[in-house]
Amino acid sequence: MVLIADSGSTKCDWRVYDRIGAKVFQKRTNGINPMIHSDEDIGLLVQEVRNEIPNEILQVEFYCAGGKSEESQQRLFQVFSQFFKEAQVRIEDDLGIAVKCAKGEPSVVCILGTGANSCFFDGAKIHKRLPDWGYQVMDLGSGNYFGRELLRSYAYGYMPRDLLGKFEDSYNLNNKDILHELYQGGNPSSYLAKFAKFMIENRDHLFLRSMIRDGVDKVFEHVLGPYRYEMEQYPLYFIGSISFYLQDFLREKAKVLDCKAVHFISKPIEHL
Amino acid sequence: MVLIADSGSTKCDWRVYDRIGAKVFQKRTNGINPMIHSDEDIGLLVQEVRNEIPNEILQVEFYCAGGKSEESQQRLFQVFSQFFKEAQVRIEDDLGIAVKCAKGEPSVVCILGTGANSCFFDGAKIHKRLPDWGYQVMDLGSGNYFGRELLRSYAYGYMPRDLLGKFEDSYNLNNKDILHELYQGGNPSSYLAKFAKFMIENRDHLFLRSMIRDGVDKVFEHVLGPYRYEMEQYPLYFIGSISFYLQDFLREKAKVLDCKAVHFISKPIEHL
Repeated sequence: MVLIADSGSTKCDWRVYDRIGAKVFQKRTNGINPMIHSDEDIGLLVQEVRNEIPNEILQVEFYCAGGKSEESQQRLFQVFSQFFKEAQVRIEDDLGIAVKCAKGEPSVVCILGTGANSCFFDGAKIHKRLPDWGYQVMDLGSGNYFGRELLRSYAYGYMPRDLLGKFEDSYNLNNKDILHELYQGGNPSSYLAKFAKFMIENRDHLFLRSMIRDGVDKVFEHVLGPYRYEMEQYPLYFIGSISFYLQDFLREKAKVLDCKAVHFISKPIEHL
Repeated sequence: MVLIADSGSTKCDWRVYDRIGAKVFQKRTNGINPMIHSDEDIGLLVQEVRNEIPNEILQVEFYCAGGKSEESQQRLFQVFSQFFKEAQVRIEDDLGIAVKCAKGEPSVVCILGTGANSCFFDGAKIHKRLPDWGYQVMDLGSGNYFGRELLRSYAYGYMPRDLLGKFEDSYNLNNKDILHELYQGGNPSSYLAKFAKFMIENRDHLFLRSMIRDGVDKVFEHVLGPYRYEMEQYPLYFIGSISFYLQDFLREKAKVLDCKAVHFISKPIEHL
């Protein structure tokens, strides 16, 4: 049997498939991010899953943001190997599972979930042309980017009046709690991304439409910029919840730029 | 004697003045930021200073970003009181010392150092109209804002070619080290602000001029936005190293907006 887990910064989806490829187990837990979680934290989560699934796991595939960096790969490999002693363990980054959606077809792949990532997949190999410097520097157009933009508009007082009450009703905006989540909470990227939900739900508001369009422009200019040439020839896959919910905006921009076919997949683990 | 300390996120300046106001001691240490440093870390720093100065300190004034939040004020008060048992201890935020530069004159005061802050000072009291949500959400136009913008332009590959070599020579851009500083380093705001130095030193480059102008526009629109009315009537004080080095850009914009007199002070502790 095979255990496959796809982890964003916020949530991790686990599946077990039997010998003939039938799904025999599924579960959703908190996300695993080797940049912010300790080996011990990760171990506890893996153990929780281990206890619920059949013993005969012969292969483990774990995908997460930053999973391809040498250090993360080593650490995660050790944690997983400890709980799956008989299994062959493979640790890959979030692009590793995202490109599977292309089913072997050369494609440009862009992840927009809590974070952002992009690559050209030539049908066999991943070509990544941007460094992984995490949510503080990269991640344009991701959930944490939009969440931060929205929170900033509120903090600086330029969020339009007719959104204010609704926004205040939707979130706990207590100074102390916000500071705690951003600086001691352990997962600020995922915390910020929660605010993007409001933007998506109220996307018909002119202010939010313009915020979305601005982010979408940045995605095509910067996150996809290094794959401009390939985008003229190959289909474009957007993977992750943010791109899934903003697909009309992304499709509109892709059309203006004369992109080939554009596909949207919210959870790649459902498309293996 | 009086001990006065003014701490940014990166550096802290300490001074001791005797009974007639003559400076008898000065020192620069690492910065103290109650949001990121533990009581123990802060205690070690205070002890280091305590060991070097005369015993008869009757008053301690400590100023730092976020120093006015109830929790920070309480914690810092306890740490300082422990080392200065005989002294009256006052903990204030960075605006507390910045407004002293106005010498009692009603003014709009804007700090642009590693972080950013702003207020209207009516001659006696500080009126602050923006929350303190730290460098991840606020801080437009600050050192960490500009540093992040610059690092982002490098990471996404849109920094102009003729700046690349120079930038790479000026900083350690090893993936692992950058990730460490941003996520485990303990002071990401100060780390990001270090990159602003490059922007200031190469400000004649068109790309960087435009980056600076964009940041300066955001300062007037958002950081100073809530004090628009007072800016028509009262002088404007810019405090901190970033505003000091960018004063020609800030002055230009202030002129366009018809501001009253504009003053620039790099270190308020030199102007008490």
